[in-house]
Amino acid sequence: MSMDMNPASSFAQLKRIESSKVFQTVVIAIIILSALTIGAKTYDLPPLVEQSLSVMDNAITLFFLVEILFRFAACSTKRRFLMDGWNLFDTIVVIGSLIPLDNSEAVLLGRLLRVFRVLRLVSVVPELRFLINSLLKAIPRMGYIALLMFIIFYIYAAMGSMFFASVDEVLWGDVAIAMLTLFRVATFEDWTDVMYATMEDYPMSWLYYLTFIFLTAFVFLNMMIGAILEVMSEEQNAREAQKAHDERDEIARQLRAVQEQLQELTKQISDKR
Amino acid sequence: MSMDMNPASSFAQLKRIESSKVFQTVVIAIIILSALTIGAKTYDLPPLVEQSLSVMDNAITLFFLVEILFRFAACSTKRRFLMDGWNLFDTIVVIGSLIPLDNSEAVLLGRLLRVFRVLRLVSVVPELRFLINSLLKAIPRMGYIALLMFIIFYIYAAMGSMFFASVDEVLWGDVAIAMLTLFRVATFEDWTDVMYATMEDYPMSWLYYLTFIFLTAFVFLNMMIGAILEVMSEEQNAREAQKAHDERDEIARQLRAVQEQLQELTKQISDKR
Amino acid sequence: MSMDMNPASSFAQLKRIESSKVFQTVVIAIIILSALTIGAKTYDLPPLVEQSLSVMDNAITLFFLVEILFRFAACSTKRRFLMDGWNLFDTIVVIGSLIPLDNSEAVLLGRLLRVFRVLRLVSVVPELRFLINSLLKAIPRMGYIALLMFIIFYIYAAMGSMFFASVDEVLWGDVAIAMLTLFRVATFEDWTDVMYATMEDYPMSWLYYLTFIFLTAFVFLNMMIGAILEVMSEEQNAREAQKAHDERDEIARQLRAVQEQLQELTKQISDKR
Amino acid sequence: MSMDMNPASSFAQLKRIESSKVFQTVVIAIIILSALTIGAKTYDLPPLVEQSLSVMDNAITLFFLVEILFRFAACSTKRRFLMDGWNLFDTIVVIGSLIPLDNSEAVLLGRLLRVFRVLRLVSVVPELRFLINSLLKAIPRMGYIALLMFIIFYIYAAMGSMFFASVDEVLWGDVAIAMLTLFRVATFEDWTDVMYATMEDYPMSWLYYLTFIFLTAFVFLNMMIGAILEVMSEEQNAREAQKAHDERDEIARQLRAVQEQLQELTKQISDKR
Repeated sequence: MSMDMNPASSFAQLKRIESSKVFQTVVIAIIILSALTIGAKTYDLPPLVEQSLSVMDNAITLFFLVEILFRFAACSTKRRFLMDGWNLFDTIVVIGSLIPLDNSEAVLLGRLLRVFRVLRLVSVVPELRFLINSLLKAIPRMGYIALLMFIIFYIYAAMGSMFFASVDEVLWGDVAIAMLTLFRVATFEDWTDVMYATMEDYPMSWLYYLTFIFLTAFVFLNMMIGAILEVMSEEQNAREAQKAHDERDEIARQLRAVQEQLQELTKQISDKR
Repeated sequence: MSMDMNPASSFAQLKRIESSKVFQTVVIAIIILSALTIGAKTYDLPPLVEQSLSVMDNAITLFFLVEILFRFAACSTKRRFLMDGWNLFDTIVVIGSLIPLDNSEAVLLGRLLRVFRVLRLVSVVPELRFLINSLLKAIPRMGYIALLMFIIFYIYAAMGSMFFASVDEVLWGDVAIAMLTLFRVATFEDWTDVMYATMEDYPMSWLYYLTFIFLTAFVFLNMMIGAILEVMSEEQNAREAQKAHDERDEIARQLRAVQEQLQELTKQISDKR
Repeated sequence: MSMDMNPASSFAQLKRIESSKVFQTVVIAIIILSALTIGAKTYDLPPLVEQSLSVMDNAITLFFLVEILFRFAACSTKRRFLMDGWNLFDTIVVIGSLIPLDNSEAVLLGRLLRVFRVLRLVSVVPELRFLINSLLKAIPRMGYIALLMFIIFYIYAAMGSMFFASVDEVLWGDVAIAMLTLFRVATFEDWTDVMYATMEDYPMSWLYYLTFIFLTAFVFLNMMIGAILEVMSEEQNAREAQKAHDERDEIARQLRAVQEQLQELTKQISDKR
Repeated sequence: MSMDMNPASSFAQLKRIESSKVFQTVVIAIIILSALTIGAKTYDLPPLVEQSLSVMDNAITLFFLVEILFRFAACSTKRRFLMDGWNLFDTIVVIGSLIPLDNSEAVLLGRLLRVFRVLRLVSVVPELRFLINSLLKAIPRMGYIALLMFIIFYIYAAMGSMFFASVDEVLWGDVAIAMLTLFRVATFEDWTDVMYATMEDYPMSWLYYLTFIFLTAFVFLNMMIGAILEVMSEEQNAREAQKAHDERDEIARQLRAVQEQLQELTKQISDKR
């Protein structure tokens, strides 16, 4: 616990320990152990096992606390440590785990935060971190499509709850419930049951469902195609630029040889003069 | 309301107001407010809230009317204003909102048109307008595939209602209902219930469903692949043309240098003569 | 009916009529009319309408017969007419329609063949013909994937009927029924009902379903990716070959100019000698 | 059975027989026959047919044993034979088939191993072997995505069994069952039934399902896009490298011609000197 008071000279050593393979493996192992204890708690266990799980849980919490303090100590610029999203996430999860589980009110929140400790696997394994980063980059490009989808859902939900609320209050009671029902229709989950019910009162209501399904499927499909194309053209642009550069280099090199030969020739003629 | 009688000199000023960020933001805010009131009406509300919603609804209708007249006034060529699809859509929706909601017959139509006011968000936000335009462009390319799909559905529906009408009148009664049932099968929605029912009378009818599913899935898949390829090759063609042009330019520039050198050489030889 | 006895001199005229826009439009209109009568028959109709539909049906059959004979007459090389798959298909469908509907045994076959008359739309509209041809070309490329899928289904079906036949005779009775059940599982259609039933006797049977779903989904996904890539690379190869050719041409043209300049220079030097 | 004692001189002959078209066809035919007997056994058959099937089964087992010994004999380097995965798989399946079916304990294992004999089709047909190899190559690229998916499932399952175990013990009893339920939700299989049940106790639990569906769908979609792009860029890189090489060759050849012309010119000038 006295790790945050290291002398400045031992920085390099801390850094070396932190980035060592052994340290990383131990941390990953403890996180997996933490995940297993969380899973184990969902089973009915004999009291003895339950008690030892609680002890282990506290030990893991302590280990994570020590680890995060160690990482903080090993970081030369303290401000950059907290600026990094992954470190911030780790810190919040670890501090959250310190909430005592005895208090019956906070027990659920504490257990929930313990579940999120599994996510620390993502922040520790570099490949997963890279994967998440590339997934996050894919979000903005879907922003306006998502907005459009929301508008479609909202309009259909407003219409649905306007007409069908009398048919089934549970499914079409208000605009929020209607949106949930439409999401169900969009996933094709027993959507015909919903349709057959409304078709008894409104025989033409199949038009409502079919247009909705076609619209969402069409927008979704085009979004997917768009996403493929966008990522692809980005990658290709980089590659083609490189290739064009290589080809230009090659041509330039060969033309330079020709120019040198011409210079040699010119020199010969001049010499003769 | 006297906005359509502006002197011609204040055109530029109107235009400046219309395209200002503040004006756009206010319009978007009012549209979102309009969407929220539409959604709020689907809930059971105390009479007071319901009354204030009605007042707000009228205020929004008035605002939209003023806004559309303002836009019309700010447009220099009046004919082009009505030629633009988005303006026409806006005008129809706004005029439709003027239908009084007291009349019990027109009340549903009036409320429906109010729902479409949410779509004005698309016509106001340029990014959504661009998205919709690019989606509309994707429709013709799917024309013949849609026709082929319809033919497949029609043939299977005709066969289905021919054979299975005796099994289940509700699902296979006539060709229209059979097409709806087949759409249900194509979305995999409880399709085995439909199949098991007909298999009791026609044990080989699984062949009907399997061929239908394979056919539609195959056509759909190829349509998707085709769509990806078409959009891709369009984009690539444009890019490659540009790239080929750049490369040609580069080569031409370098060869011109060689030619100049040769001219210089020729001149030297001529001089010597 | 005497159309197949035209003098040879009127060939060109027949050809001109056949490929005229009016003739094509009339044929398409009659096919659509034929499709509509097929659809109309699936409804309960008053006797008078039913009778007039029968008359119309006979008229359409006659028209198709005359049309096919006309096409045959207009075709200069009679053998090539029957070699063409589309013509053969048209002929079979038209001849099949000649089966009288009075005989109660053949009535179903006759009605079925009338349904396939809708498919004549595909053989008449060139765009649909092109579409079907390109879809047919996509089949061989999926041959071995389909075989692999069949092997996976067969192995799982054999295992399924081995273990689960005692649980549910209807779903797992023999290998054929088990394959149908597995196809249902592959379409996610109430697959958990099937799984929960077998999990009561074989608690580990979820492994059977999950591995099956993952395997088929994985193979299907890779097939789709493979299909996209194959079609794409085919198209690209053609395009790139053309582009590379164009670029070579351009370079060759410019280098030829340089060579000519060099020849001119050589000549000048020779002249001076 | 004395085939493993061939004199070394007849190696080439054995090899020739093994790779002959007739031998391959016979082996494939026997495998298909084996598959058919496995399928046939799942039907209720008269005792006589059942007996002849048993005889045939033994004959096939014997044939496979002889075949594998023959292949082993035909292989010049015995160690490489067992190193090859396909041969090892064949050997295990064939040896497994030797387990006698009389013993009631081993009967299920023996029958199971007989089912896997169908997989020998994959190891014998080269096209299928190639397909499987290319599918296996696709697995590692999905490794970290699969891990990420597992983490998402685990976290949601832990949360689910924490909150919903009181609602439905069968679906949310422990973390393992909860993961199975979530897989069901991910395949959209009656997921609303699951949701509606939990929404009675936790009205906000739709948020749990929607975020889960969006997360898994989003990760899955990006995985698919990533897979398409990766395979594509691999293929393209190879193709582009070849193309760039061809173009360089062409340019080099033409420039060499120019250089030769220049050399000729230089020589002429030198001669004149």
